[in-house]
Amino acid sequence: MLTYDLESRGGLSLYEFLYRRLREDILSGALAAGERLPSKRALAEHLRVSVVTVESAYQQLEAEGYVDARPRRGFFVSPVNRLPAAREGISIPPEEPPRTWRLDLKSGRVDSFPSALWARLTRQVLSEGDHLSPVPHQGLPALRRAIAQDLRDFKGMAVSPEQIVVGAGAEYLYLLLAQLLGRTSVFALEDPGYPKIRQVYGQWGAECRPIPLDGQGMALEPLYASGATVAHLSPAHHYPTGTVTPIVRRQALLRWAQEVDGVIIEDDYDSEFRFTGRPIPTLQSIDGPGRVIYMNTFSQTISPSMRVGFMVLPPRLLERYRQELGFYASTVPALEQQVLARFLQGGGSPAGSWYEQHLSRTRKQYRLRREAVLARFARCPFAAALIDRGAGLHFLLRLNTTEDDETLRHRAEGLDVRLAFLSEYAVIPRPAYRHTLVVNYAGLDMERLEEAVALLSEIFLTSPSARLKPVAPSPRSGGSEPTPSGPEPPSPRG
Amino acid sequence: MLTYDLESRGGLSLYEFLYRRLREDILSGALAAGERLPSKRALAEHLRVSVVTVESAYQQLEAEGYVDARPRRGFFVSPVNRLPAAREGISIPPEEPPRTWRLDLKSGRVDSFPSALWARLTRQVLSEGDHLSPVPHQGLPALRRAIAQDLRDFKGMAVSPEQIVVGAGAEYLYLLLAQLLGRTSVFALEDPGYPKIRQVYGQWGAECRPIPLDGQGMALEPLYASGATVAHLSPAHHYPTGTVTPIVRRQALLRWAQEVDGVIIEDDYDSEFRFTGRPIPTLQSIDGPGRVIYMNTFSQTISPSMRVGFMVLPPRLLERYRQELGFYASTVPALEQQVLARFLQGGGSPAGSWYEQHLSRTRKQYRLRREAVLARFARCPFAAALIDRGAGLHFLLRLNTTEDDETLRHRAEGLDVRLAFLSEYAVIPRPAYRHTLVVNYAGLDMERLEEAVALLSEIFLTSPSARLKPVAPSPRSGGSEPTPSGPEPPSPRG
Repeated sequence: MLTYDLESRGGLSLYEFLYRRLREDILSGALAAGERLPSKRALAEHLRVSVVTVESAYQQLEAEGYVDARPRRGFFVSPVNRLPAAREGISIPPEEPPRTWRLDLKSGRVDSFPSALWARLTRQVLSEGDHLSPVPHQGLPALRRAIAQDLRDFKGMAVSPEQIVVGAGAEYLYLLLAQLLGRTSVFALEDPGYPKIRQVYGQWGAECRPIPLDGQGMALEPLYASGATVAHLSPAHHYPTGTVTPIVRRQALLRWAQEVDGVIIEDDYDSEFRFTGRPIPTLQSIDGPGRVIYMNTFSQTISPSMRVGFMVLPPRLLERYRQELGFYASTVPALEQQVLARFLQGGGSPAGSWYEQHLSRTRKQYRLRREAVLARFARCPFAAALIDRGAGLHFLLRLNTTEDDETLRHRAEGLDVRLAFLSEYAVIPRPAYRHTLVVNYAGLDMERLEEAVALLSEIFLTSPSARLKPVAPSPRSGGSEPTPSGPEPPSPRG
Repeated sequence: MLTYDLESRGGLSLYEFLYRRLREDILSGALAAGERLPSKRALAEHLRVSVVTVESAYQQLEAEGYVDARPRRGFFVSPVNRLPAAREGISIPPEEPPRTWRLDLKSGRVDSFPSALWARLTRQVLSEGDHLSPVPHQGLPALRRAIAQDLRDFKGMAVSPEQIVVGAGAEYLYLLLAQLLGRTSVFALEDPGYPKIRQVYGQWGAECRPIPLDGQGMALEPLYASGATVAHLSPAHHYPTGTVTPIVRRQALLRWAQEVDGVIIEDDYDSEFRFTGRPIPTLQSIDGPGRVIYMNTFSQTISPSMRVGFMVLPPRLLERYRQELGFYASTVPALEQQVLARFLQGGGSPAGSWYEQHLSRTRKQYRLRREAVLARFARCPFAAALIDRGAGLHFLLRLNTTEDDETLRHRAEGLDVRLAFLSEYAVIPRPAYRHTLVVNYAGLDMERLEEAVALLSEIFLTSPSARLKPVAPSPRSGGSEPTPSGPEPPSPRG
């Protein structure tokens, strides 16, 4: 009869201890395959525990398959072998710890989250139980209505909520578009450009062609020559060059899409931050034939930690989209969608919705920050030219240096400074991209501006060639274009 | 000189009105390409507005590219053409409106969200500013630590937070795994099985092979014959058959993975709801050689509207995973990750963490609901057999009918009843799958049980063949297996 020292069970219950000892004996072979366990009653008497205890242990062993229960005959040991326990000595590769930078001009984190109001709206939604209603694939109808209204009121776009798809950030939307278009189409991507775009499409296996920019945006001749039928563009304010695509080129790009029976993905990632004049109308709003997929997120306007983006599909793609991709569950929590919908629509004061008020507050904050940074950098000996389009949360700074970007980056990292160079955004390297910093200024508050200048001076003024007289155009004037010469170089602003 | 009737500008500002009229004249050709606009001063005098107004309008037109500013020469009209305005008559296909069901046994929505506590934790996180800290691709470290601790405490799994990847729901994690493994591997999928698994992998283009189940889970012979090197399994409680894979088969599956140098994806979607005995140890916890990717979500335990899942990668895959997929931003909002981490860890009363208390409350609630539903259904003339494994939020109900499933489904939909049939989960149809309902009982509260029985009777008892005497096994006993016969049919529970 099986004998276990029940006194040695420590904190375990009798049942748990008995189950573990039996399992161990089966795994070790002490109880051989096919062997019959003692009857519940007999073992209970032998160990002086209740029949229920033995029964529970046997049942658990049976549920896991260690024993086989045969009606009226009892429990028989299954043919279990102990598997090799060693994990082959593969250790867990440690994660790279997040680095703390003294100055970070690469990530440009925005930090204007409306926390108190968000907490209030969250409590409201939770108490009303609205976070439990099922969310269709395209997103919560209330949120899509709010987005459509915002697009109409502030971008002049006529969009129906039925065309909108909400998803967990821009990259997830890229993944959806790769699935919708990537099987049959070649993608034309801006070069230089935002690297995640080509990473996601490439990850999917879509053929991607880097298309150079001229002063007006994606160059037409290489686009036509590429064989692409999908072009991913950011015409309002290209990342990282800042190029604004003028109306003539926009029309030419739309004509291209129509001619090749293709699609333009308009990535409007930071158009809310235009500091001079009206917003530039979107490509989508002049897209008569319905060739444009418009895309935006709340990462720049509210917070990158939100993970909410949306896209607007043209009617011609909508049916196929729903058929092929509508099976996916929405990737954005219902609670967050509800809170965001209320934030976009609520408020209703003469100053506009909460979102409008928030935007106008942040816009003012970034405008001040931007002007201060541009003015201060213009006086720095390391600045050869500031290339700024009066828009967005970044600008270009052409450096007064002959050192190569890699050397400068390494020197910066040694000082805990994170820099982004234009050259690293290009697939096809060109001399024109060198010596140019992409300055994401949104996280650079004014109190730390002098420290930032001191750090940058330490990085850039180590080289003897950098002791030249700075060329410092006024912040509003364009400066020279960093991209290779195109047919129509942009004129300086009047 | 350009003449516009400024009185007709309605609510627009002078600048905005002037900009729009000029743009319209350029688009219509009234102002021809190459034409020089009047000087700012001259037009201002002519229209009796300020020079600043004209200047703003000109600048906006220049920013959008409608005119070209040439230094000291003035503004010249760009060669813009009006694009076709018509949207080709493609109308927006209407969305299918969400249907309200009198009875829904397919979706089985859980509804036990801890709203008050969630609101409190959200306010806490927001006021402490923790939602603004950047989230690495694998997810917030605090959340991964909480998940690792929960897996250790309640599933006996030794897992390091470095192995965990948090993502926006199971489907998003499937998409990541498709990218990691799908390029080179054939996927073996349980048939019948959860359809989204094959949809996502198939969407990615991975080769998928449906592998039949026997009474113990995925059948070995067809698995070996399939040429697959990845198997996606739910050994704790298969959806929808409910099969629990016993230890002998688990060991055999692990041996298979080792032999083919492959990977097992253990989809542990509802293992928290085991109503008898201890939880069944996971495959991951007996995976010596490191062949198992463990996966779970909080959809069943907290709410499907949350969109948070996680997976545990074995050390051997971790480095490649980070290299190939680490570039993606985390898809779960930082705020939600922070709140969930506190919910998993906080509380600290003798009754356990808030999550434990929540789980034990919901488990009790579902156990009562399940027992009531099983007991009631067992007495129904339409029930031929209840096939239940004492676990999970669904069970099978073999119907006393000869009508085909499609007829029954249509009849149900006519009564606003949503049903799920075992047959619809299978790629390869088999007679054994017919006449079997998958009952997702979690949303069926007891007050509505009699109404549900009445509706089901109306659907199933219309056919003359259904007037037989019901066979009603007790809820805890197994009933006959719905899957085709395998080498080792499971024995009824002792």
